[in-house]
Amino acid sequence: MATFKKIEVVGTSSKSVADAIKSAVASASKSVRNVSWFEVAEIRGAVKGGEVSEFQVTVRLGFKVES
Amino acid sequence: MATFKKIEVVGTSSKSVADAIKSAVASASKSVRNVSWFEVAEIRGAVKGGEVSEFQVTVRLGFKVES
Amino acid sequence: MATFKKIEVVGTSSKSVADAIKSAVASASKSVRNVSWFEVAEIRGAVKGGEVSEFQVTVRLGFKVES
Amino acid sequence: MATFKKIEVVGTSSKSVADAIKSAVASASKSVRNVSWFEVAEIRGAVKGGEVSEFQVTVRLGFKVES
Amino acid sequence: MATFKKIEVVGTSSKSVADAIKSAVASASKSVRNVSWFEVAEIRGAVKGGEVSEFQVTVRLGFKVES
Amino acid sequence: MATFKKIEVVGTSSKSVADAIKSAVASASKSVRNVSWFEVAEIRGAVKGGEVSEFQVTVRLGFKVES
Amino acid sequence: MATFKKIEVVGTSSKSVADAIKSAVASASKSVRNVSWFEVAEIRGAVKGGEVSEFQVTVRLGFKVES
Amino acid sequence: MATFKKIEVVGTSSKSVADAIKSAVASASKSVRNVSWFEVAEIRGAVKGGEVSEFQVTVRLGFKVES
Amino acid sequence: MATFKKIEVVGTSSKSVADAIKSAVASASKSVRNVSWFEVAEIRGAVKGGEVSEFQVTVRLGFKVES
Amino acid sequence: MATFKKIEVVGTSSKSVADAIKSAVASASKSVRNVSWFEVAEIRGAVKGGEVSEFQVTVRLGFKVES
Amino acid sequence: MATFKKIEVVGTSSKSVADAIKSAVASASKSVRNVSWFEVAEIRGAVKGGEVSEFQVTVRLGFKVES
Amino acid sequence: MATFKKIEVVGTSSKSVADAIKSAVASASKSVRNVSWFEVAEIRGAVKGGEVSEFQVTVRLGFKVES
Repeated sequence: MATFKKIEVVGTSSKSVADAIKSAVASASKSVRNVSWFEVAEIRGAVKGGEVSEFQVTVRLGFKVES
Repeated sequence: MATFKKIEVVGTSSKSVADAIKSAVASASKSVRNVSWFEVAEIRGAVKGGEVSEFQVTVRLGFKVES
Repeated sequence: MATFKKIEVVGTSSKSVADAIKSAVASASKSVRNVSWFEVAEIRGAVKGGEVSEFQVTVRLGFKVES
Repeated sequence: MATFKKIEVVGTSSKSVADAIKSAVASASKSVRNVSWFEVAEIRGAVKGGEVSEFQVTVRLGFKVES
Repeated sequence: MATFKKIEVVGTSSKSVADAIKSAVASASKSVRNVSWFEVAEIRGAVKGGEVSEFQVTVRLGFKVES
Repeated sequence: MATFKKIEVVGTSSKSVADAIKSAVASASKSVRNVSWFEVAEIRGAVKGGEVSEFQVTVRLGFKVES
Repeated sequence: MATFKKIEVVGTSSKSVADAIKSAVASASKSVRNVSWFEVAEIRGAVKGGEVSEFQVTVRLGFKVES
Repeated sequence: MATFKKIEVVGTSSKSVADAIKSAVASASKSVRNVSWFEVAEIRGAVKGGEVSEFQVTVRLGFKVES
Repeated sequence: MATFKKIEVVGTSSKSVADAIKSAVASASKSVRNVSWFEVAEIRGAVKGGEVSEFQVTVRLGFKVES
Repeated sequence: MATFKKIEVVGTSSKSVADAIKSAVASASKSVRNVSWFEVAEIRGAVKGGEVSEFQVTVRLGFKVES
Repeated sequence: MATFKKIEVVGTSSKSVADAIKSAVASASKSVRNVSWFEVAEIRGAVKGGEVSEFQVTVRLGFKVES
Repeated sequence: MATFKKIEVVGTSSKSVADAIKSAVASASKSVRNVSWFEVAEIRGAVKGGEVSEFQVTVRLGFKVES
């Protein structure tokens, strides 16, 4: 039966949590084919001058291992 | 004194985490009256063609049990 | 070497998770200088009339202790 | 073999943690037969005028599913 | 978009963990249509006479809410 | 919108868990206005001469930040 | 320097969480000398006839190892 | 009222998770009377030559303390 | 001294948890040499027609990094 | 009875985990009297040029609230 | 196949985390033969006069049960 | 915006926790450029002849993905 692999990627965005997730998925998809799901593991970010400058979202990405 | 119940619902959205939460709340409110709070338990989602196709957010919804 | 302190703040927003985080950061920055990062500890919120009325996001804020 | 179901109920009491648990169990037993155990998932509460006004205890209640 | 609900069921078996999961799923499917996934939350069991007499596996079952 | 802060306080009591929580809330309310909820984070205690001498309950207290 | 050991004991009581903890400590102190602290690991219990029949509290007990 | 003790045992098996649990229970029952339940705390194992050579399952075993 | 790496793989099986673990290990061993242990991180699966159709077990696999 | 407060401080050191803890304690003790215990919540750090440049250890510090 | 037992021991040291672990292992090895691994469960300690006076590290020690 | 990847590496040392972390970082930096932070996920180790023979520290290493 099928086997999947999970990798952890941290996406960043200055706008939103969803944007940081999308960025992580898009970036990983350049080198990994077949990403089919994500799981959010951690949400954190950077602050500059009293304002959020960056959302940093760690996602685990799952993709099918080609046999 | 009052008693509350919690149920777990997974809301989905192609746009954002907040949208998926709103969708879960709105959908549950069709059959459950008096939902008064939510707690996010898990954020995950589906990926298609190298892009996020769906945010899936599990929320616990709390509502008052009518006696 | 440097020492940092972490405090826990709950930001609220009627719009989104990101907005609630931004609100927590902005509010804390009025009394604390040098906030440099945040970590999301909990996402929950209030529901009224079958709709999400408020996102409540607990963030831990880290800032440098001035010696 | 037997199957059980678990539901989450929040009991409240102005007196004690035990009382809030008892309240949750008693309330749920009005609509669910055969509750046979509970597991405390969370203890929290409300404060008014500098004093605890309510203990809120989330319990998971287990009961046999009648086949 | 679609909404899902999760319920917690404890399946039991004298043989194996997998069997207890199958039992939970089969039992819940009598009253809930469209169960589409499970998540194991806890594995425990009973012992009698120095031997395992029962595996008790708590699973969260997810199913689509029909609108 | 409103912002809240959480602080961690350890209340103690020789009698009960509820008493230790009440003690933490009462003590903190001397210096912090507007405490509106608590969350129990840890329950532990001291033993002397084979008997419980003190319940020590760590609670997170939430209160509104005045702007 | 000193070394301590921790053991896990489940105390029971029909009355309260504090009572179950006290029972665990008193019972363990019959065979273990020098118990000096406890940590609550789990609170659960039994239900009979729609009422709580027993609080079952798992505590980790710490005591000095005599060298 | 009754008091119980919990001990942690790691059972091993080359065949299955259930088998490793059974092995832990059977082994502990040689020296401890009255084991009445188990809770799985961890599932791991050894790999040799690209195949699982051993399942290692940590179980907490609960038994009544004789007074 | 030696260094090890851990990767996360999801094995699947229609039969049992142990089988899904074995499948993950066997599949990963095709591309990674020296896998020497596994740790189960999550057990979940798919349901079709009221029956478990697939066990999906996430395992972390540890192997020696060749220097 | 006595009440304690817990604050979170991140100590840093280029040498060791223990050193980072000591640094956090020493730094906090400049402004807080009566710190009597610490609990490690997180160990992380920075890397530069392929080597650990800084250990960052988050500790919760407990101290008696003077009444 | 082999069975192992795990016990929890708290080692202490005025110097470092590693030293506290070594102390726990050495102390337990006086009464338990065949300790073969440890797992750190908690790192905490005492503070006196604004300085760390003791590291207290809880370790789970695993050893083979002789049959 | 930037994307980061996290990998899990187990460093070992016969001397200390810090040394095992340094070893993990140094070893991974041979094949991965730009490692910029680490997070400790687990501390365990091996025991031989009643003494700690090896500290085994699992660290998650974060590094920038070059686009």
